[in-house]
Amino acid sequence: MLEKNYEVEKEKVLELIEQKKFNQLKEYLGRINGADFPSIFEEIDDEDVLIVFRLLNKEKAAEIFTELDSDLQERLINSFSDVELKNVVDKLFMDDTVDIIEEMPSNVVKRILRTVSDKDRKIINEILNYPDDSAGSIMTTEFIDLKENMTVDEAFEKIKKIGLKKETVYNSYVLDKNRKLLGVIDIKNLLVADRNQKISELMDTNVIKVNTLDDKEDVARIFDKYDYVALPVVDKESRLVGIVTVDDAIDVMKEEASEDFEKMAAITPSEDGYYKTSVLTHAKNRIVWLLFLMFSSIVTGAVITHYEQAFAALPILVSFIPMIMGTGGNCGSQSSTLVIRGIAVDEIKTKDFLKVWWKEIRVAVIVGIIMAIVNCIRILIQYHDLQLGIVVGLTLIVTIMISKSLGSMLPLICKKLKLDPAIMAAPLISTILDTCSVLVFFNIAVAIMHI
Amino acid sequence: MLEKNYEVEKEKVLELIEQKKFNQLKEYLGRINGADFPSIFEEIDDEDVLIVFRLLNKEKAAEIFTELDSDLQERLINSFSDVELKNVVDKLFMDDTVDIIEEMPSNVVKRILRTVSDKDRKIINEILNYPDDSAGSIMTTEFIDLKENMTVDEAFEKIKKIGLKKETVYNSYVLDKNRKLLGVIDIKNLLVADRNQKISELMDTNVIKVNTLDDKEDVARIFDKYDYVALPVVDKESRLVGIVTVDDAIDVMKEEASEDFEKMAAITPSEDGYYKTSVLTHAKNRIVWLLFLMFSSIVTGAVITHYEQAFAALPILVSFIPMIMGTGGNCGSQSSTLVIRGIAVDEIKTKDFLKVWWKEIRVAVIVGIIMAIVNCIRILIQYHDLQLGIVVGLTLIVTIMISKSLGSMLPLICKKLKLDPAIMAAPLISTILDTCSVLVFFNIAVAIMHI
Repeated sequence: MLEKNYEVEKEKVLELIEQKKFNQLKEYLGRINGADFPSIFEEIDDEDVLIVFRLLNKEKAAEIFTELDSDLQERLINSFSDVELKNVVDKLFMDDTVDIIEEMPSNVVKRILRTVSDKDRKIINEILNYPDDSAGSIMTTEFIDLKENMTVDEAFEKIKKIGLKKETVYNSYVLDKNRKLLGVIDIKNLLVADRNQKISELMDTNVIKVNTLDDKEDVARIFDKYDYVALPVVDKESRLVGIVTVDDAIDVMKEEASEDFEKMAAITPSEDGYYKTSVLTHAKNRIVWLLFLMFSSIVTGAVITHYEQAFAALPILVSFIPMIMGTGGNCGSQSSTLVIRGIAVDEIKTKDFLKVWWKEIRVAVIVGIIMAIVNCIRILIQYHDLQLGIVVGLTLIVTIMISKSLGSMLPLICKKLKLDPAIMAAPLISTILDTCSVLVFFNIAVAIMHI
Repeated sequence: MLEKNYEVEKEKVLELIEQKKFNQLKEYLGRINGADFPSIFEEIDDEDVLIVFRLLNKEKAAEIFTELDSDLQERLINSFSDVELKNVVDKLFMDDTVDIIEEMPSNVVKRILRTVSDKDRKIINEILNYPDDSAGSIMTTEFIDLKENMTVDEAFEKIKKIGLKKETVYNSYVLDKNRKLLGVIDIKNLLVADRNQKISELMDTNVIKVNTLDDKEDVARIFDKYDYVALPVVDKESRLVGIVTVDDAIDVMKEEASEDFEKMAAITPSEDGYYKTSVLTHAKNRIVWLLFLMFSSIVTGAVITHYEQAFAALPILVSFIPMIMGTGGNCGSQSSTLVIRGIAVDEIKTKDFLKVWWKEIRVAVIVGIIMAIVNCIRILIQYHDLQLGIVVGLTLIVTIMISKSLGSMLPLICKKLKLDPAIMAAPLISTILDTCSVLVFFNIAVAIMHI
């Protein structure tokens, strides 16, 4: 339903530009939702984008600007006059300004910083200095601050005066004269209160807050847990310096999930999207793990060579290698994925490792026996060889038990050692298990078949 | 910082219960954040939990109740008197009531439904009837509705009167006399407006809304895109029936990511968490894919058997199978993971398949050449055999190019065929590529080495 609009809207915009019906265009643009513009801009010329921008009111232009691709942002800034640039930057919220600056080359950054006030420049530089993964780096400095001796009426007066310039009015923050955070008050509580009640009676003093240097992923988890729409960020002296809003927390969650997907596929996580990452960077992000995993699988190769005699005597053994290695790898990565995800969503804790292992080992026994029986039957039908069936069946049971144990324990061990559990995902687990599976297989084969 | 509190809080609660200092306990409980209770309850007896519940005020008791594990909820309901149950249910928001009902056995459901009014029972039954993955199933029916001819002052009067019973006051919805949705208004715009302005002048008529039957994952994506805190849900006749709030959208996103992780590790996604899923269900969720992948890898085994002569003549070839299969599988799953994730976050679209393929093929050439050179050098050093080095090197280049092509294209083909792209993740891709890699390897070996 929502997807279809863009094409119609884009056609209409282009038509009005071509016919130079700018008044009509201006009126039409006003009716389009800000978040739809990036899709509309996707395939129209920069010059036309510039025309559209000049027709938008300042607030909307700024809102849309933050949503654009950083390449387009850069090209637009280069086309803007100084006055136009100032108009846009003035209407941006601080966190968006910082986001844009982070993506721009230094000459553009200089131009942007020239348009802002000395005070704002200082704030921007401070936010830029917070580490990339900190709460400080994603916060905005526009929030509503109240005093505890204000009445509800006075609070509404203040909100009415400054509300439009603040990123959110849903929460207000009560500060003392040193800007220390005393409490928080939800707009709901202000709205249902009596006009002359004191803020101090209404505010919630049990404030969940984060520190500027807290990990932004922890901040996102707090949003998830407490269902907030904004969280206050304080500095070391408990002074309120900014807030993080829920939309930024959602971005962090999305980014975090993407990073985990990449790590779990043996890719060094990339800051940018798929298209924005260059071919060379893509290659670099992938080759490191490939080389590492290649060397590990050479070990498996060496193990196989060690049993050259066995498969020289019975070449059919070799044909089972892919199935046994594949099953071991898949079983291991099933367990490791569940545990890695369980750790990420805070369900599985390192102290529970025995509980997890006991669960996995029981799953392994069930899965192992089924896989063994199915294979044994197949081998009996195909090769009429019960001994071979027993060798493969036993190998599967042992391999699956090892796989599920290692698959579930290694991420927890990583977590315990303060390493990222996600490195123990499918690729590394599979490679480790390849060697185990082949060892188990040939040892069982040699023992039972006396080859 | 936040983690440490639970232990201290739990100790204090238990101490006060033991000493029967209930007044002090009541006062202490009031200071604990609602979202912290589930962690505090984790290791205390049901009877003590019940004592705590009886000391909480009704709103807080209801808020905490929604956050508890469904097993504990059930045990508590069974301990509640009818009056206590009614007190909790009365204070629940509709979406939370429905969530709880969905997890309870039928006798508990009957008790809950007996405590609610006829009107509420009808609404609950309606929400229960929406498909599990629909917007209707996650919406709540408590929202603020205004009329277009109201003044701002009248709107505030209404919000003051009914606000506390509504899940959010951040947005209000303007309805006509048939309850059709005319517009939406953010509390910010009400707060900064003049007291006697009409709602019709202030409301945004360009409302992004969803239908009761829309996929809840699409709803979550709209939240992400438009940065809303609530979205209106309308029925087929455009009447407003409920709203979805951002916290529920976050839950959907989390669930969706977990499902994708599971699918990508060859696991049938589970509705419940790791611990709540029984060993048998875990085994069932995993065995289906394992059996399927096992049969596919038998094909690879058959291919290897076909080249028995080649490795009988040169057994060292066998030792390269794990490395070549592993590299092919890893390269393929790198590409498929990036594409699957790109599709999930709406960055990669099916129409871009050529753009994606061209990017992957260039990455493949770079990665392939590096892997080939490294391997060739290793083989020269280890075996002093240039021919073998060339065979392995060439195999790697061809395999990696095939892997990256298939890895990137298959998820897009799935998407085009309206199948879930995530099924083309690591396990299936690796198994498909195993056969390809082995075929490429032996064909090149036979051609170059004349064996």
